[in-house]
Amino acid sequence: MDMVLGIDVGGTSIKVGLFTPEGKFLDERKITTTELVSEQAFAAVTGAITAFLAEHDAGPEDVIACGLDVPGPVADDGTLGIIANVELDPKGFVAAFKAAFPQASIAFVNDANAAALGEMWAGAAKGANSCVVIAVGTGVGAGIVANGRLVAGAFGAAGEAGHVTVNRDETRQCGCGRYGCLEQYASAQGIVRTYLEECERRCVKPVDVEHATDTLSVFRALADGDECAKYAVEVMCDYLGLVMSQISCIVDPELYLIGGGVAGAFDTFAPMLRERFDAYALKPSRAARIEVASLGNQAAMYGSAYEALRIRRESRTPSLE
Amino acid sequence: MDMVLGIDVGGTSIKVGLFTPEGKFLDERKITTTELVSEQAFAAVTGAITAFLAEHDAGPEDVIACGLDVPGPVADDGTLGIIANVELDPKGFVAAFKAAFPQASIAFVNDANAAALGEMWAGAAKGANSCVVIAVGTGVGAGIVANGRLVAGAFGAAGEAGHVTVNRDETRQCGCGRYGCLEQYASAQGIVRTYLEECERRCVKPVDVEHATDTLSVFRALADGDECAKYAVEVMCDYLGLVMSQISCIVDPELYLIGGGVAGAFDTFAPMLRERFDAYALKPSRAARIEVASLGNQAAMYGSAYEALRIRRESRTPSLE
Repeated sequence: MDMVLGIDVGGTSIKVGLFTPEGKFLDERKITTTELVSEQAFAAVTGAITAFLAEHDAGPEDVIACGLDVPGPVADDGTLGIIANVELDPKGFVAAFKAAFPQASIAFVNDANAAALGEMWAGAAKGANSCVVIAVGTGVGAGIVANGRLVAGAFGAAGEAGHVTVNRDETRQCGCGRYGCLEQYASAQGIVRTYLEECERRCVKPVDVEHATDTLSVFRALADGDECAKYAVEVMCDYLGLVMSQISCIVDPELYLIGGGVAGAFDTFAPMLRERFDAYALKPSRAARIEVASLGNQAAMYGSAYEALRIRRESRTPSLE
Repeated sequence: MDMVLGIDVGGTSIKVGLFTPEGKFLDERKITTTELVSEQAFAAVTGAITAFLAEHDAGPEDVIACGLDVPGPVADDGTLGIIANVELDPKGFVAAFKAAFPQASIAFVNDANAAALGEMWAGAAKGANSCVVIAVGTGVGAGIVANGRLVAGAFGAAGEAGHVTVNRDETRQCGCGRYGCLEQYASAQGIVRTYLEECERRCVKPVDVEHATDTLSVFRALADGDECAKYAVEVMCDYLGLVMSQISCIVDPELYLIGGGVAGAFDTFAPMLRERFDAYALKPSRAARIEVASLGNQAAMYGSAYEALRIRRESRTPSLE
């Protein structure tokens, strides 16, 4: 029976999703790893996957496609850029997978891009020809789909919506080295920081915030009528709506999906985000739908499986040079 | 002998380009028209094209593809939006063309998008997989190509780079009804206005400017060391570079081509534009080339011919609903 793997590659573990070629999710398994740079580490991973397959009465030869989503840039031609925080030898990794699963096409996909593909394949964007999935979490990332195909970018930087400059007067530096990026205001970290700063400005005691990305407490404060929390969410929606209007001036998608941790509060901020987007967008683009992503943290698993299947159909192999 | 037509549809005339299916330009002809809304007007156009074909020993049955570029929105599915300044009944126009050239696939393409496709097919973007062609003329428009395919947008508004908001403090309204659009600063009109305003601000007599889009005089003044002209071109490059950096965060193209009337001064402003783009862009995207478009005002003719050929290959017919 043909099987497809979608694999989240992380720093200390990988998460393997098992799918049918039609996109039906069967099961998932978390595998703890050492640094993915040695034959031994690769063998441990492929061995664990083979055991996982056996539980589903499948063998290594049943795997027809295997997608790997990585937290770093992957260009249009499948080339992998530098991945921060993950020790990975991509050439060795692919060679080990090719040996272990000889029938499988192998694909690398950036995680935000994989999430977009996953939502297109089996989630809230199913049937859409164009869609932008914006993951609002610790940072802000996006996956762009146009003409039914992922736009990865010539240099792997497509969908870096978190780094669109929205405030040229910002004096604080963003993690990317530039100033006034969307991510500085519309990420979980940005929301919490705006909240705390606004409390300080108004000389108001903030609610307890457990950590730098604890938006749960900020949204709870908002529900309790906290004006500073309201302000932080307004700033988030204003900048995010602005960037979405700019994205519409470039690729004009039919659908925006909001994912990532902050999407848990989607129902709370959606009306405000809609209002801000409509205020900034060109008239025809206001017909775009804004909805919540539906696959949660499984989206990238789905999407990388999908991309590997697509590559199989087009018999393309990714370049590692 | 198979022939392909690429036709610029304007308000009072159409310009017909004759191509081989391989993209070789053979000849062009301007045909004066009345409003394109009656059988009589359509017959006059198709008759003139048939006579033009006869000069090249070709008949109506030799036309295998016919692309029509229009100064208005065309969505991903080929649907035509409202076209300002051109009286056109698209359904009747297509029906007349189908009757006159029965072998031809027919396609509508937005003019800026057509220019991008033309440059990809036979111009400076030949061989590129992704490219953004920015036409800097009376206004600012762009054509976005990703994964080798034009991105027209779900609502026909992809590539509306001229309406990316770059200055939220602007109090003057843009033609689109919004405020602080790129077009207000980086178009021919914007450059001339910035120049005149800066002269007034500094109480300096401006050089003679013949009309609202006479950038030639401004660039001539710049060459003569005029500080206000330098300022106007700096503002143009700064905002255009900023928007290009934002485009790179969305689709990350390998190549930018600058076309339109202002591209005549490309050599003058290119170093400044490059510097501004590099200052704003994410590091990987700075590898993008910035060059001048090569097909001039023939680009859209080429591109609409190309799109009609592509549709023929994919046997798709455009929707007019």
